[in-house]
Amino acid sequence: MEWHNITDPASSELDQLAERYRIHALHIEDCRHRNQSAKIEEGEGYIFVVLKVMRLLEDGSLHAADLDVFFGQEFVLTVEEEQCPEIRSIISQVRNAALPMRRPDQVFYRVIDQVVDAYLPILDHYSDRIDELEDEALESPAPETLSSIFDSKRALAVLRRVLVNTRDVAGHLQRSESPYIERELWPFLRDVYDHVARNLDTVEMLRDLLNGALDVYLSSVANRTNQVMKVLTILGTIALPALVVSGFYGMNVKGLPAAESPYGLVLVAGVMFGSTAVLLWILKRFHWF
Amino acid sequence: MEWHNITDPASSELDQLAERYRIHALHIEDCRHRNQSAKIEEGEGYIFVVLKVMRLLEDGSLHAADLDVFFGQEFVLTVEEEQCPEIRSIISQVRNAALPMRRPDQVFYRVIDQVVDAYLPILDHYSDRIDELEDEALESPAPETLSSIFDSKRALAVLRRVLVNTRDVAGHLQRSESPYIERELWPFLRDVYDHVARNLDTVEMLRDLLNGALDVYLSSVANRTNQVMKVLTILGTIALPALVVSGFYGMNVKGLPAAESPYGLVLVAGVMFGSTAVLLWILKRFHWF
Amino acid sequence: MEWHNITDPASSELDQLAERYRIHALHIEDCRHRNQSAKIEEGEGYIFVVLKVMRLLEDGSLHAADLDVFFGQEFVLTVEEEQCPEIRSIISQVRNAALPMRRPDQVFYRVIDQVVDAYLPILDHYSDRIDELEDEALESPAPETLSSIFDSKRALAVLRRVLVNTRDVAGHLQRSESPYIERELWPFLRDVYDHVARNLDTVEMLRDLLNGALDVYLSSVANRTNQVMKVLTILGTIALPALVVSGFYGMNVKGLPAAESPYGLVLVAGVMFGSTAVLLWILKRFHWF
Amino acid sequence: MEWHNITDPASSELDQLAERYRIHALHIEDCRHRNQSAKIEEGEGYIFVVLKVMRLLEDGSLHAADLDVFFGQEFVLTVEEEQCPEIRSIISQVRNAALPMRRPDQVFYRVIDQVVDAYLPILDHYSDRIDELEDEALESPAPETLSSIFDSKRALAVLRRVLVNTRDVAGHLQRSESPYIERELWPFLRDVYDHVARNLDTVEMLRDLLNGALDVYLSSVANRTNQVMKVLTILGTIALPALVVSGFYGMNVKGLPAAESPYGLVLVAGVMFGSTAVLLWILKRFHWF
Amino acid sequence: MEWHNITDPASSELDQLAERYRIHALHIEDCRHRNQSAKIEEGEGYIFVVLKVMRLLEDGSLHAADLDVFFGQEFVLTVEEEQCPEIRSIISQVRNAALPMRRPDQVFYRVIDQVVDAYLPILDHYSDRIDELEDEALESPAPETLSSIFDSKRALAVLRRVLVNTRDVAGHLQRSESPYIERELWPFLRDVYDHVARNLDTVEMLRDLLNGALDVYLSSVANRTNQVMKVLTILGTIALPALVVSGFYGMNVKGLPAAESPYGLVLVAGVMFGSTAVLLWILKRFHWF
Repeated sequence: MEWHNITDPASSELDQLAERYRIHALHIEDCRHRNQSAKIEEGEGYIFVVLKVMRLLEDGSLHAADLDVFFGQEFVLTVEEEQCPEIRSIISQVRNAALPMRRPDQVFYRVIDQVVDAYLPILDHYSDRIDELEDEALESPAPETLSSIFDSKRALAVLRRVLVNTRDVAGHLQRSESPYIERELWPFLRDVYDHVARNLDTVEMLRDLLNGALDVYLSSVANRTNQVMKVLTILGTIALPALVVSGFYGMNVKGLPAAESPYGLVLVAGVMFGSTAVLLWILKRFHWF
Repeated sequence: MEWHNITDPASSELDQLAERYRIHALHIEDCRHRNQSAKIEEGEGYIFVVLKVMRLLEDGSLHAADLDVFFGQEFVLTVEEEQCPEIRSIISQVRNAALPMRRPDQVFYRVIDQVVDAYLPILDHYSDRIDELEDEALESPAPETLSSIFDSKRALAVLRRVLVNTRDVAGHLQRSESPYIERELWPFLRDVYDHVARNLDTVEMLRDLLNGALDVYLSSVANRTNQVMKVLTILGTIALPALVVSGFYGMNVKGLPAAESPYGLVLVAGVMFGSTAVLLWILKRFHWF
Repeated sequence: MEWHNITDPASSELDQLAERYRIHALHIEDCRHRNQSAKIEEGEGYIFVVLKVMRLLEDGSLHAADLDVFFGQEFVLTVEEEQCPEIRSIISQVRNAALPMRRPDQVFYRVIDQVVDAYLPILDHYSDRIDELEDEALESPAPETLSSIFDSKRALAVLRRVLVNTRDVAGHLQRSESPYIERELWPFLRDVYDHVARNLDTVEMLRDLLNGALDVYLSSVANRTNQVMKVLTILGTIALPALVVSGFYGMNVKGLPAAESPYGLVLVAGVMFGSTAVLLWILKRFHWF
Repeated sequence: MEWHNITDPASSELDQLAERYRIHALHIEDCRHRNQSAKIEEGEGYIFVVLKVMRLLEDGSLHAADLDVFFGQEFVLTVEEEQCPEIRSIISQVRNAALPMRRPDQVFYRVIDQVVDAYLPILDHYSDRIDELEDEALESPAPETLSSIFDSKRALAVLRRVLVNTRDVAGHLQRSESPYIERELWPFLRDVYDHVARNLDTVEMLRDLLNGALDVYLSSVANRTNQVMKVLTILGTIALPALVVSGFYGMNVKGLPAAESPYGLVLVAGVMFGSTAVLLWILKRFHWF
Repeated sequence: MEWHNITDPASSELDQLAERYRIHALHIEDCRHRNQSAKIEEGEGYIFVVLKVMRLLEDGSLHAADLDVFFGQEFVLTVEEEQCPEIRSIISQVRNAALPMRRPDQVFYRVIDQVVDAYLPILDHYSDRIDELEDEALESPAPETLSSIFDSKRALAVLRRVLVNTRDVAGHLQRSESPYIERELWPFLRDVYDHVARNLDTVEMLRDLLNGALDVYLSSVANRTNQVMKVLTILGTIALPALVVSGFYGMNVKGLPAAESPYGLVLVAGVMFGSTAVLLWILKRFHWF
C-alpha cells in the first residue's frame, strides 16, 4: 500500500498521481477549489472523500479547511487544501500511529475518525458560550449580547451543515458495498456514523438553546422597560398630589382655606401626604403594581 | 440461562465475559463511555442494547444513567454504568420477580419494561411543573419564571431525545426477526413500543404547553406595562388641568380674572375640577382607556 | 353472530369472554386501563380497536372516554370503559338501528361511524369559540382572553391526537385485507377515513386561527399601549408651555417683562396658547402622531 | 357518448342516472352534501371527481362551490351542487367549445382545466391585496389592517387546502392507468398538474408575504411607540430645567440669589435656557436619541 | 448535429422546427408563455428543459428570464423567451467555446453549467446586502431597514424556488437513463447538481440570517424604547423632589419652616438636592437602572 500526502493542491505532483491512479478530472478540480461540501464520490478504481476540518479562530469565529482523501485497492492519496495546523496534526497522528495499517480503508478510517473527534471540543466551546450568553441575556441584556447570539447561531448553522454532510458520507460508506472497504471495518464506520449523528443531535439542542437565549434577551428588555415604567409611575404618584396642593396654595387668589390659620401649614401638609398615601393605596389595592 | 450483572464497567470481569461471549470490542468500549444514546445493535451471537434510566435530581434537573444489556441464546449480561439507585432498583426488581424467567429475551423484556415504566412519573412531574409555570406566568411574571420555563424546555428536549431513541430500539425489536427473541414475546414488545410512543406524544404536548407558557409570560409583561401606562395617563389627566390653572393664578401678573373677587377661589377651583372632568370624559368617549 | 356489551371492564364476565374468544391478556389489560390511544391491533381470531368518544364538559373542557371493540368471524364484544352518556347513546343507537346487521364488521362500522360523527359538533363548538376569542382579542384584550386561547389550544391538541390515531385506525382497516371485513364494506370504511381526514383538516385550520388570535391579542395590547402613550404626549404637549410660562411669571424676581402693564395678562396668556399651538403643529407636521 | 348535466343534486333524475350507470350510493350521497374536499375515487365502471370552484364574493371573502364529475367509457355526468355563476359559465363554455369532443375523458379534461384556470385571477386578487396591506402596515398601521391580514390568511388557508387536494386529484390521474383515460391525454393532465403545483407555490409565497406583513405591522407599531416616547422625552428635557428654576425662584424664601438685582431676570433666564441646552447636548452626546 | 437558436418565441421559425422535430404542442406553448418554472420533460424523440436565467436589476430587485432547451439525438434547439443580456451572453459564450462540441448533450451541459454559474454572483450580492442590513438593524434601525429586509426575503424566496426546480432538473438528468445523454457526461451533470445543491444551502443560510436581522431590528427598537424610558425616568427623578419642595415653599401659607431664617435658602436647597440624591441612590440600589 502506498500513501501519498500532498500539501499543496496546486503542485504538479497531484497531476502525476491523478494520471497514475486514473482519477477523474472533476475530482482533481474539486481538490483545487476550496469550500467544497463534505462529500463522497465513487470513481472508477477509487473512492473520493472530501472532509471538513473545523478550527476555532482566536476571535471566536469558525474556520473550515478541506481535507481530500482518495483511496483504492492499493493506495491512499490525501490532499491538504490549505496550510492548516489541525489538518497537519491529524495527518501526522495517523502516520505515526503505533498500530500497523496495511490497508487503505484502515488509513481512511483513522483519518475520518480523527476529523470527527476534533468536532467535539468545538461543540463544547459553543455549549459553554451559550451558557454565558443565557446568563448575560437574563442579567445584563446589551446589544452586544444579541450580536454574540447571532454570531453563535451562524457558526452553528455552518457546523450543522458540515455535520449533515459528514453524516451522509459515513452513512454512504456504511450502506455501499464498495470493494475497497473490508467487511471487518463496517462496525467501525458505523461507530463514526453514530458519533456524527450524536454531534448533530447536540448541535440541534444548542440551536434550540440559542433560540431560548434570544427569547430570554427580548423578554429581559421588555421586563426592564416595565420596571422603569413602574418607577416612573410611583414617582408620579408620590409627587403629583403634593404638586397639585402646593400649586393650589401658590395661587394669588383671595380666601385660600386655612391659609391664615396658625395650623394652616400642618393641615396643608397633611392633605399632601394624605392624598399621596390614598393614591398609593388605591394603586396597590387594584394590583396596578 | 446465565445472567451476569456487572456493577463496575471498568472491572476485568467484563473483559472476561466479553471474551467468553465474543462481544465486539466497540460494544465493550460503549459500556465504558457514559452518555451513549439509547440504541440497539445486533452483534454476532447476541443483541446489544443501551437503555437510559432517567432520574429527577433534587434541584429539579434531570439525570440520565446508562444501563447496557447484552443477550444471546443462553445468556444475559447487564452492565450498570454508574452507581445509580434507579438502575439498582430495576435490576433487583427483575431479579426477584416471582415469575420464573427461563429465556434471556424474557429477562430483557422485563428490564426494558421497567425502564420505560420509570419515565411516567418524570413526565407527571413536568406536567405539574408546567401547570405551575403557566399560573405564575399569568399572575406574577418574574425573570425566575422565565428561567424555569427554559430549564423545563431543556429537560424535555433531553427527555424527548431519549424517548425517540428508545422508541427506535423498541421498533427495531418489533421488526427484526432476531433468532434471540421468541415470537410469543412480540405483542409484549409492541406494548413497550406503544408505551414509549404515548410518552413521546405527551412530551410533544408538554413542549407545546411550555411554548404557550412563554407566550403567556411575554404577553403578561406587555399587559402590565400597558396597565402601568394607563395609570400614569390617568394620573396625568387628573393633575395637569389643576397644575395649569394653579400655575396661571400663581403668576405675579396684574389683572388675573376674578382674583380679587370673594367668589374667586370657588370659580378657580371649579375651573380646575371642571377641566379635569372634561378631559377624563373625552378620553373615555374615544375609548382611550 | 353474538354481540356482548360489557359496561364494567372490571367484571369477571369480561374474563370469561376473553377466555371463550381467546383474547390476548394484554388486550384485556388495555380495556382495564383508561386513557389508551385510539388504536387497532390484529389478534389471533379477532380485531381489537380502541375508540375515543369525546365529550364537552360543562366548563368547556374536553373529556375523552374509551370504547373498546373486539370483533371476529362470529362475535362482537364492546367494552364501555366508563359510565359515559355519549358511549351509552352510541351503543343503544347501533343496537336499535332499523337495519338488520348480520355480520360483526357491519356492527363495527356502525359504531366507528357514530363515534366519528360525534366529533363534528365538538369541532363546531371550537370554531364558534375561536370566532368569539378573535373578536375579544381585537376589541377588549384581557388576560382572560389569553387563558381562553390557551385552553382552546390545549383542547385542540388533544382532539388532534385523537383524530390522528383514529385516522390511522381507519387507514389500517382500509389497507389490511383482514378476513373479518368483507370487501363490500370497504367503500364505507374509506368514507369514515375521509370524514376523519376532513375533521383533521378542520382542526389544523382552527389551530392556525387560534395562533392568529394570539397574534391579534398581542398586537392589540401593543396598540393600546401606543394609544395611551399618544394621549400622554398630547396632554404633555398642551400643558408644558403653559406650565413653563406660568412658572416663569410666578418667580419672585424683579422686572418680569410686561408684568406691570395692563395688557400683561393678555400677552402672557397669548404666549402660553401660542407656544402650545406651535408645538402641536410641529408634532403634526413631522407625523409624530 | 352521452353527457348529462344535473343542476339540482336533489332531483330524482340523479337517482335514475345513478341506477343506470351503477354509481355507488356513497358517491351520490357526496353529491348531495356540500363542502366535500376535492377528491378522486374510482368506482366500478366510472371515475368520480369532486372539483371545487372558487369565487370571490363582493365583501372580499372566498366561496367554494362543489362541482361533481362522473365519467366512464361512454358517459359523462356533471352535478352542479349549487346555483353558482362560475360553475354555470364553466359548464357552458365546455359545452359550446368549437372543438368536437368525442370521448368522456376529453370532456373531463376541459372541465378540470377550466376550473383550475379560474384559480389564477383569485390568486392575483390576493397578491394585490397583500401589496396594499404591506403598504398599509408600514405607513398607517391600524387594527383594521390586522383584521384584513388575518382575513387574507384564512382565505389563503382555504385556497391552499383546495389546491393541495386538486393537485392530488391531478396527480392520481397522471399515475393511475385507468381504462377511462386515453394515453394521448396524459401530457395534458400533466399540464393541469403543473398548473396547480405552480398555483400552490404562489399560495405558499403569498402566505410568507402575509407573515411578513404581520411582522411589518407589529414593528411599525413598536416604532411608533418609540417615536412618541422620544417626543415625550424631548419635551420633558426642554421643560424640566425651566420648571425647576422657576419653581426655585417662586419660593417664598428670603435671600434668593440675584432676585433683587436689576440683572436678576436675565441671569435666571440664562440659567434656564443654559441648563436645557446642556441637557439636550448630553442626551445627544450619548446617542440617547 | 444542428443547433438552432430562436430569439423570438413568437416567430414562425419555431413552428417549422417544432414540426420538423415533432415537438409536442404543449411544449411549444410553454416557450410562448413566460414565467414557467424550471423543469424537465421527456418528449418523444427529445428532452425539453426550461432554465431560469436570473438578473439583478438596477433597483436591486431580481428578474428571471426563461431559456428553453430542446435536445435529441441530432439536434439542439434553444429558445430565448425575451431579450435579456444574460441569456444572450450565455448562448454566445457556449457558441464560441474553444472546445469542439459534437453532441447535443454536450451543448446542453455547457448551457446549464453557464446558467448555474451565473447564480453565484447573485448569491454573493445578497450575502453582502444582508451583512449591511444586519449592521443597519443593530445601529440605526429605521422603517426602511425593515422594507429592505422584506425585499431581500422576497427575492430569496424567488431564488430558492428557481434553485429547487433547477436541482430537480439536474437530479432528474442524473437518474434518468435517457438515450440522449451519454454515460461519459454523467459525472459532469452530477457536478452541476452539486453546485445547485450548494447554492440552495447558501440560500437557506441567507434566509436564516435575514430572519436573524429581523429579530435584531425588532430588539433594537425595543432597546431604544427602553433607553428613552430610562432617560425620562432619570430626568423625572432629578426634577421631582426639587419641584415638590419649591412648590411647598411657593405656597401662600403662613409659618413655612425656616422661611424667614437667614439660612432658610441654604436649608431648602439642601433638602432639594438631598432628596434627589437619595432617590437616585435608591433606584441605583435596587438595580432599577
